[in-house]
Amino acid sequence: MSGIILGENQYGKAENRIVRIYRDTPRHEIHDVNVSTCLRGDFSAAHLEGDQSDVLPTDTQKQTAYAYAKEKALRSIEDYGLALARHFVHDVAPVTAARIEIDEYAWERAEVNGAGHDHTWVRKGQEVRTAAVTVDADGEWVVAGFKDLVILKSTGSEFAGFLTDPYTVLEPTHDRVMATSLVAQWRFDTTEVAWEPTYVDVKARLIEQFAVVQSLALQQTLFHMGRAVLEHHPEIVEIRLSAPNKHHFPYDLAPFGIDNHNEVFHADDRPYGLIQATVTRDDAPPAGPAWDVQRGWLG
Amino acid sequence: MSGIILGENQYGKAENRIVRIYRDTPRHEIHDVNVSTCLRGDFSAAHLEGDQSDVLPTDTQKQTAYAYAKEKALRSIEDYGLALARHFVHDVAPVTAARIEIDEYAWERAEVNGAGHDHTWVRKGQEVRTAAVTVDADGEWVVAGFKDLVILKSTGSEFAGFLTDPYTVLEPTHDRVMATSLVAQWRFDTTEVAWEPTYVDVKARLIEQFAVVQSLALQQTLFHMGRAVLEHHPEIVEIRLSAPNKHHFPYDLAPFGIDNHNEVFHADDRPYGLIQATVTRDDAPPAGPAWDVQRGWLG
Amino acid sequence: MSGIILGENQYGKAENRIVRIYRDTPRHEIHDVNVSTCLRGDFSAAHLEGDQSDVLPTDTQKQTAYAYAKEKALRSIEDYGLALARHFVHDVAPVTAARIEIDEYAWERAEVNGAGHDHTWVRKGQEVRTAAVTVDADGEWVVAGFKDLVILKSTGSEFAGFLTDPYTVLEPTHDRVMATSLVAQWRFDTTEVAWEPTYVDVKARLIEQFAVVQSLALQQTLFHMGRAVLEHHPEIVEIRLSAPNKHHFPYDLAPFGIDNHNEVFHADDRPYGLIQATVTRDDAPPAGPAWDVQRGWLG
Amino acid sequence: MSGIILGENQYGKAENRIVRIYRDTPRHEIHDVNVSTCLRGDFSAAHLEGDQSDVLPTDTQKQTAYAYAKEKALRSIEDYGLALARHFVHDVAPVTAARIEIDEYAWERAEVNGAGHDHTWVRKGQEVRTAAVTVDADGEWVVAGFKDLVILKSTGSEFAGFLTDPYTVLEPTHDRVMATSLVAQWRFDTTEVAWEPTYVDVKARLIEQFAVVQSLALQQTLFHMGRAVLEHHPEIVEIRLSAPNKHHFPYDLAPFGIDNHNEVFHADDRPYGLIQATVTRDDAPPAGPAWDVQRGWLG
Repeated sequence: MSGIILGENQYGKAENRIVRIYRDTPRHEIHDVNVSTCLRGDFSAAHLEGDQSDVLPTDTQKQTAYAYAKEKALRSIEDYGLALARHFVHDVAPVTAARIEIDEYAWERAEVNGAGHDHTWVRKGQEVRTAAVTVDADGEWVVAGFKDLVILKSTGSEFAGFLTDPYTVLEPTHDRVMATSLVAQWRFDTTEVAWEPTYVDVKARLIEQFAVVQSLALQQTLFHMGRAVLEHHPEIVEIRLSAPNKHHFPYDLAPFGIDNHNEVFHADDRPYGLIQATVTRDDAPPAGPAWDVQRGWLG
Repeated sequence: MSGIILGENQYGKAENRIVRIYRDTPRHEIHDVNVSTCLRGDFSAAHLEGDQSDVLPTDTQKQTAYAYAKEKALRSIEDYGLALARHFVHDVAPVTAARIEIDEYAWERAEVNGAGHDHTWVRKGQEVRTAAVTVDADGEWVVAGFKDLVILKSTGSEFAGFLTDPYTVLEPTHDRVMATSLVAQWRFDTTEVAWEPTYVDVKARLIEQFAVVQSLALQQTLFHMGRAVLEHHPEIVEIRLSAPNKHHFPYDLAPFGIDNHNEVFHADDRPYGLIQATVTRDDAPPAGPAWDVQRGWLG
Repeated sequence: MSGIILGENQYGKAENRIVRIYRDTPRHEIHDVNVSTCLRGDFSAAHLEGDQSDVLPTDTQKQTAYAYAKEKALRSIEDYGLALARHFVHDVAPVTAARIEIDEYAWERAEVNGAGHDHTWVRKGQEVRTAAVTVDADGEWVVAGFKDLVILKSTGSEFAGFLTDPYTVLEPTHDRVMATSLVAQWRFDTTEVAWEPTYVDVKARLIEQFAVVQSLALQQTLFHMGRAVLEHHPEIVEIRLSAPNKHHFPYDLAPFGIDNHNEVFHADDRPYGLIQATVTRDDAPPAGPAWDVQRGWLG
Repeated sequence: MSGIILGENQYGKAENRIVRIYRDTPRHEIHDVNVSTCLRGDFSAAHLEGDQSDVLPTDTQKQTAYAYAKEKALRSIEDYGLALARHFVHDVAPVTAARIEIDEYAWERAEVNGAGHDHTWVRKGQEVRTAAVTVDADGEWVVAGFKDLVILKSTGSEFAGFLTDPYTVLEPTHDRVMATSLVAQWRFDTTEVAWEPTYVDVKARLIEQFAVVQSLALQQTLFHMGRAVLEHHPEIVEIRLSAPNKHHFPYDLAPFGIDNHNEVFHADDRPYGLIQATVTRDDAPPAGPAWDVQRGWLG
């Protein structure tokens, strides 16, 4: 019989819920994140013999994540992630690669007398900003992005001329609601980036293209969205978009003698179309471990 | 042995996910709601004998909810809820009371070239607006509100001088983070209300009080919040607030020689304090069935 | 203007996730619960003036819940809840009423060599057992129950002969799938109960009736289920059932020339019918605060 | 500037909630699944020009999934997934690869008079069984597995002798609770498998090893679990395990003078250790697209 061996493996501390308040002046600042660490290296002894001498505990990874929120900085999540990943790879001998995944929750200042309050915020909702930073012997990769950006257009979307087969009953349409809960992730070829304005601009361009393109299919809309980002950001070499097609079905009111010209919809939960596309450059550098995942490793 | 009888009962169609688009001009409007209907009356025959002749199907309630989004209007959820509740009570003989519970999800126009787009929106996140309308033979009750408004202040909150017993280990504090995911519901003594500006103003006052009151306890903050609403809105006779105390614990960085003066926190999930308070008027009219619940009937 | 006053209020520590292992012999036992405490009394000073001198911190309530898991016992959740509630009311002066809500997660022993393992378990899934214990100056109330019991029958369910109106399009049926995620809660008129066998028997009777009754409507099924419990348990005076009608729609395969005689269904998420009924005794003692809720106070 | 091009892409219909009842005899059978389809091929025209002529609608994929539940069979999810994937690749010209991901929810017969009822079931809870089937021009890959299997041992677990650094505060322990919500996926090198008994046996072996191995670390436990599966199943060439370390912290009762020798625990939510390991064969055939994911494509 063949030999049974250890294959790919990794470990870390997931979902450290860190809130960092900057309070050096009466006008505080808040950064609210969910940080997951993940280390790779030769951890065979731990798996095969239960020998932990090369294993930095996940508890230590947690302590480090909290400590770095003060020792280093927790402003741009990309920089914070880079600091953590570099530390694990450079300072902890058995670690050959580290991946830091961060979700950031946005807050806006509470309005009091028409102005933003110094130390009170309301959670903004809407999208969750994300970053995935990977460092190994070959380099450093930063993927920025967001998830849960729910966007809808009530016209300007068609779906027609599609392939049919014996199981096709769908009618073509030239006017429908199109809605999605967008996940977007874009990869940089550098770590020298103005993270904050870049994030704001990428998000704005994605939303704008979704709005203005006359959609012939979600696929085409996604390509336009991704292309617009790459056209304006030479430091971004690739963008991936995952878009559930959140179906809004016109409700049949004919039995009640009521016309319904795309005015009343049922927002259905499941199933949903799921369209996923990458827009990239023909000379993009290799992605390396940039797209590896921790929490989603097994789908 | 005692006789076994039917007690309180009700039935309806929960969570109709209706989206209403107004598209009479190129500048569309969107209203996105989750509607639950609930009917009461003498439905003994259905329970005891399986006789449905007095039972309006939940499917019919659903059809009506969708139809009314066009036949009537779906702008202010309170008015829409009143229209539905009145219909069931007045037009369907066996129904003696109806309760309509509505969640509304806010959208904001997508920004394109610095202006809000005509027919594209981004879901706003933040709080979910709610309404609960009950109509019976004695009258009509409207409760407006919201849930999931997450709000945090990074200073201006104390907790000290509390009762202690042998199980008390908590240390008093004069500076802590206070955060909650607020549920607020306020009851009107009339149905003639300017629903939209009232909602905006109540929400703003709640947030403002949370921000400006030097908090000695979440209880005191909630009372100030409720009182501010009642002081400015004579048409509101009662407000209920439910506030989970979302604990933010200062992280112990002393082992690493790092000072942490309320700068780095762990946002804990569970357990959480849960503070619930009602602020009302000494001459408030009876609440009748206003505070009954459908989905939460059994906690 | 009318006076603005404090109305109903309560506070506590919600969702203490306590796991109790009995390990006095090599054959360990596990009890896994989620405990919420809730205290009532005159807490006006805390609300009106921020004076905490009568407020036992929610942190202390948490400590007590964990301590009692060892000091008292954590076997039957009803007894554990009674111990906690009595303590708060009898030992903490300002507290006039206490309510303890508990969810219990069942585990079954891992099978090793055909036998249950001494100290390893697999979480059982299926229903979550619940208890709500309330103690005040007038007495003690225990409500036992469960939630999330998902049950389905593939035939033996009809729905016909119902009331129709202009919005009715539903067709009657004499053979359909009926499924629900049942919430059941039953109230005792005593605290001297053999909690464990009673729970097992009540659950079994509910399931059995769901199976064997030819259903003419979910209402009728629920009444039969509740009545069977009351007939066999004189110590139970009332049972409440909340049953979402989890719709399974026969899928239309006619376009593909395929017959579908209730063989292929789409399990829909929303909306769903929601049927709620109480079965009680004509001489049931008053419910007092038995049905009050903490976490669901505002729906 | 570099050229901007379409990269990897795929699309499908996610989360078709199909319930299949076999009712050829009075003793019905139930299969309850959540099916996601995903197609790959050259869909450039759809992305670049909005030309759908090569795009089989996601709605058609849905229809096919429901139709196949009757036309083919929906018993073993692996066979059903293979039938669907082969159909899309072989019968729909532009499709070069298809991936079908299926979750299956287990039901057990309701007990009536000591026997399993003919047409009533209770949802079993516990783990969700999974399958991921991929077919392309190079071959067919089947990955079976489960998720959400929550398992706990109350002793027989240590963690000591680990690497320390300046951020390490964790104390070694030789007796702790170890618990996880296990995700397991195993890859076959054939499609000729007795799917049902294999699933039962693999699950049993994983649970048994978790129970009987004296754990020196979760890593070591996972390796033992995976190895046991490969030793007994030559048709399985690789198994991946993802195990969140669901921390159970002994609660500090010393302030109350109560001993706590691993008897009372707080089950914490976040953060959690996350340990992921692959156990494979030294001569395992290439995995091809077996581990690709649809819903988790972007983590």
